[in-house]
Amino acid sequence: MAVSYKAPVKDVIFAFDVLDSYNILKKIERFSDFSPEIAVPAIEECAKFAEEVLAPINSVGDTHGATFKDGKVIMPPGFLEAYDKFKKAGWASMSLPYEIGGGGMPYTLSGGTLEILCAANMSFVLGPGLSIGAISGINFNASETQKDKYLPKLVSGDWTGTMNLSEPQSGSDLNHITTKAEPQEDGTYKITGTKIWIGSGEHDLAENIIHLVLARTPGSPEGSKGISMFIVPKILVNDDNTLGKKNNVHCISIEEKLGIHGSPTCVMEYKNSTGFLIGEENSGLNYMFTTINEARIRAGGHGLACTTGALQGAAQYARDRVQGRPVGMSKEDAKNSTIIDHADVRRMLMTIKSYSDAMRYMMYDNQMMLDFSYFGDEDTKDFGEERCGILTPISKAWISDLSVELTSMAIQVYGGMGYVEETGIAQYFRDARIAPIYAGTNGIQALDLIFRKISLNDGNTVNELFEDIEEITKQLMDNNGFKNLGEILSNHLTQLKEITNLLNIKLIEGDLTHASGVATPYLKMFGQVLGGYYMGKAALTAQKQTTDKDSEFYNDKITLSKFYIEQLLPLASGYEQSIKSDIDVLFNINSGNF
Amino acid sequence: MAVSYKAPVKDVIFAFDVLDSYNILKKIERFSDFSPEIAVPAIEECAKFAEEVLAPINSVGDTHGATFKDGKVIMPPGFLEAYDKFKKAGWASMSLPYEIGGGGMPYTLSGGTLEILCAANMSFVLGPGLSIGAISGINFNASETQKDKYLPKLVSGDWTGTMNLSEPQSGSDLNHITTKAEPQEDGTYKITGTKIWIGSGEHDLAENIIHLVLARTPGSPEGSKGISMFIVPKILVNDDNTLGKKNNVHCISIEEKLGIHGSPTCVMEYKNSTGFLIGEENSGLNYMFTTINEARIRAGGHGLACTTGALQGAAQYARDRVQGRPVGMSKEDAKNSTIIDHADVRRMLMTIKSYSDAMRYMMYDNQMMLDFSYFGDEDTKDFGEERCGILTPISKAWISDLSVELTSMAIQVYGGMGYVEETGIAQYFRDARIAPIYAGTNGIQALDLIFRKISLNDGNTVNELFEDIEEITKQLMDNNGFKNLGEILSNHLTQLKEITNLLNIKLIEGDLTHASGVATPYLKMFGQVLGGYYMGKAALTAQKQTTDKDSEFYNDKITLSKFYIEQLLPLASGYEQSIKSDIDVLFNINSGNF
Repeated sequence: MAVSYKAPVKDVIFAFDVLDSYNILKKIERFSDFSPEIAVPAIEECAKFAEEVLAPINSVGDTHGATFKDGKVIMPPGFLEAYDKFKKAGWASMSLPYEIGGGGMPYTLSGGTLEILCAANMSFVLGPGLSIGAISGINFNASETQKDKYLPKLVSGDWTGTMNLSEPQSGSDLNHITTKAEPQEDGTYKITGTKIWIGSGEHDLAENIIHLVLARTPGSPEGSKGISMFIVPKILVNDDNTLGKKNNVHCISIEEKLGIHGSPTCVMEYKNSTGFLIGEENSGLNYMFTTINEARIRAGGHGLACTTGALQGAAQYARDRVQGRPVGMSKEDAKNSTIIDHADVRRMLMTIKSYSDAMRYMMYDNQMMLDFSYFGDEDTKDFGEERCGILTPISKAWISDLSVELTSMAIQVYGGMGYVEETGIAQYFRDARIAPIYAGTNGIQALDLIFRKISLNDGNTVNELFEDIEEITKQLMDNNGFKNLGEILSNHLTQLKEITNLLNIKLIEGDLTHASGVATPYLKMFGQVLGGYYMGKAALTAQKQTTDKDSEFYNDKITLSKFYIEQLLPLASGYEQSIKSDIDVLFNINSGNF
Repeated sequence: MAVSYKAPVKDVIFAFDVLDSYNILKKIERFSDFSPEIAVPAIEECAKFAEEVLAPINSVGDTHGATFKDGKVIMPPGFLEAYDKFKKAGWASMSLPYEIGGGGMPYTLSGGTLEILCAANMSFVLGPGLSIGAISGINFNASETQKDKYLPKLVSGDWTGTMNLSEPQSGSDLNHITTKAEPQEDGTYKITGTKIWIGSGEHDLAENIIHLVLARTPGSPEGSKGISMFIVPKILVNDDNTLGKKNNVHCISIEEKLGIHGSPTCVMEYKNSTGFLIGEENSGLNYMFTTINEARIRAGGHGLACTTGALQGAAQYARDRVQGRPVGMSKEDAKNSTIIDHADVRRMLMTIKSYSDAMRYMMYDNQMMLDFSYFGDEDTKDFGEERCGILTPISKAWISDLSVELTSMAIQVYGGMGYVEETGIAQYFRDARIAPIYAGTNGIQALDLIFRKISLNDGNTVNELFEDIEEITKQLMDNNGFKNLGEILSNHLTQLKEITNLLNIKLIEGDLTHASGVATPYLKMFGQVLGGYYMGKAALTAQKQTTDKDSEFYNDKITLSKFYIEQLLPLASGYEQSIKSDIDVLFNINSGNF
């Protein structure tokens, strides 16, 4: 009964144009030949794979779920076969550097493949996503010997990887990790402790699982400066790279969750498990941060994917469902009419679709900046890192928050049928709900933005972004068709800049509590304006690309930009008052009285 | 692991004060002795019942669910015993008129009991709620003989009732109902057709179920003017009021839903089932509308209940969970600190709690207006009907939409634990998601507001409401402590009035499409301002009632009003632009292109 997934190939390709990706990525030597000739077939191939292999087992993953028995995790029916195809097709490693056996494609491109694969089956895609985190953790920080030992099989997907950060008493705040790592005479460590929220910590898809585990060595400093990172394989790897004996690592339970049922969330128990130190002792948190940015951008991608997946279902249902007579339509015309002709249903679909576009451009741009931060030259690397730094908390939180709202709206389009699990639309809503939580809650993203990112590079980073937005407002205002859009965007940009200045002054004055109290509405306001920037770019790009043949597609893009800037962007103003308000009010109620 | 429910007795009682219920209800003769001496013990008793009997089986209802086997619906473990107690305690019939055996309490009071009972166990309460609909349907429209036959057992709860409106092709739009009713020589009718979304259509809680079924008699006019209402008992009732033979009425399946698992949603099959006409033929839709208002207000109540229930969980978790150091707090102080000391977590809790208050006042006021519409004298009945008319779509849609957002926020307070079903917080989120759908989707509420309600009584109804809001802005502005609040509320009221005038002009000009396209943002804006009105009243009431003994409670209420008016009310402005915008944009994209 669920709508079969059809990847929005043309929209994805258009996003690369909006971001001028082919030209901009030429600044990175290894991507100098990246072009539509590479991107389009890759996206088309990905679409085919997602539609034919992953989408058909999405609902199975949800209803059946991963199951836990006698210490083993059994993945849902069909996942093993699909993983085999996924691995062989190289989707797992598409954007990993070719030096370690990856596909060497830009992260920009894998923004598109992530969206498509994940919209088809988010639970399935989460596991390989975590492997990417482990691979980056090893690739950026481990020794050559370690890289040689673990990377080839991780990159090929024959093994998978995990990130083991949280413990029961230590989730958002990793300072209080207590897992112990005792050095042994042979240079290895014995790891002991319990780790929670370990995505794909145990499963039956691959022959080995390489855990990256944060732990403390004896006598290490308190807090975050005393955390080290260890490689703890499920099965130890011999010097000749064959598999050796089983390590003492166990999954002791999996969580029963609201969604992503096909992705096992494990409690992992380490008891004198053999671990191998990565890099230096006490540098584990820094190593972890090299991978967390990627994970945050991906979490935004998950939100985007749930939204665009849900949009398809809602649009299809609205096209099919005959019900009621649209206001102002004659009885005769109404006979061939479905609920998509109702203005209020249209508003819901337009809202989901234009937000989807804004989210897509934002997330792919963030990925493009990741490309620069990883592979840029001296001139462009810093820019990439900084721009990526400021975009990441916004894209992660803004997109993932919206994805809950928009998948909920998709349910509403279905009416009563949306509440019935059989239609599959509720799964998107349940799956989407994790994205605001993992990879750092959205509250943490907001604090990151306000305390670390707007002051980056003495504020130049955020100002450069504002200048880019301003440039788009000018182009819109200079354009007869878009003058109005430019003015609206400009007004909201001005408001955002004023608010940013006000916050900067408060921060300089040392009023940290104010900043922490208004961080969330500030991020929401910033996201809404940033979305306007991308939608402005999209309108300008669509106008340039319109040809007689394809005018409908591009006109639609202009319509979506118009709708966003005229009707959704203004919601940004609603946050201004919150941000300016006295925040003492937050603490005027005793905590027992809530 | 789930937090045990503790009813917010003091908040509920305070709401009656904010609405000046005891004085205002004196205008209705039958409620002239309604007083705190009646209300307080009733709410306390209700709290005890909800906490001790209903809350303990809330999670059972969710995880076990109602099950369907061989045409029978088996309710979750514990529901039967609880229903027996519920019935005996009289909660089912508290606000039904004493003339038919009800408790004769005002609906105002049952706003409070609905909130409490439903926050403890929404799935459980839905069934008896539907009985109330059937009872009203019979009580207002059926013959004396029919009333005598069915009402006593329905009111006592020995039997339950249902409303059978929707069919597969006819949900939001009841014009296309095809269920047939063929008159028989003995004056009865043979009913044949399939009905869907029938809450508690079958279950094992009561010995009989009285279905009210909409159907068409032969030769009846097309559309809504040809629909009649029938009583179709599961077991026929003999003339001596004993149970007779089984009627040919069958539940053929129940839906697997996102939430409210303890409430069976049935597909009912009628095949030459014996039915009894209520009132006149072809008047069924009018009869139905006499009960639908109640159902809509209750749907808002469900949203309120999910929100206040979720708030408790989130607040308790935030008080218990040790994690991170609040910005600006010393390491030493942070040792005894939990996440409730983080400004961003506070913002979430303050948002949920102040919206909860606004929602509560709005919903109870709506119930109070229902009291007037049912039991008022000539002078007050019309006012009650009209005010109830305008409040109902707003309270239903604004509250139920918000309840999804706020229960989602409650999950966010829990972080990762919020996503784990075990904590119980996700159940509130899943349960809440139905309220924007049933009893008329929120889109339909918005159309009702804009097309039928703002023009009620030549616009005097809405203007009287605006005058009431204006009166509160004046009282706030005249009050030294609340001057600022009065100004903010006044500005937003002015904006709402301007927008309302603009819409009226468009409507007079015949631009119905514009109105239908902006109905939802208009309702949201109206709800946000109306919430400000109630929060203003609450601040004024709290200030008057503050005594040395109870100052903390009342100061908290003032703080919540301040937070709402300063920080949440301004979101109303964000909708202005949408409502003013050209809505052609909604139809510029071909439906195939979404």
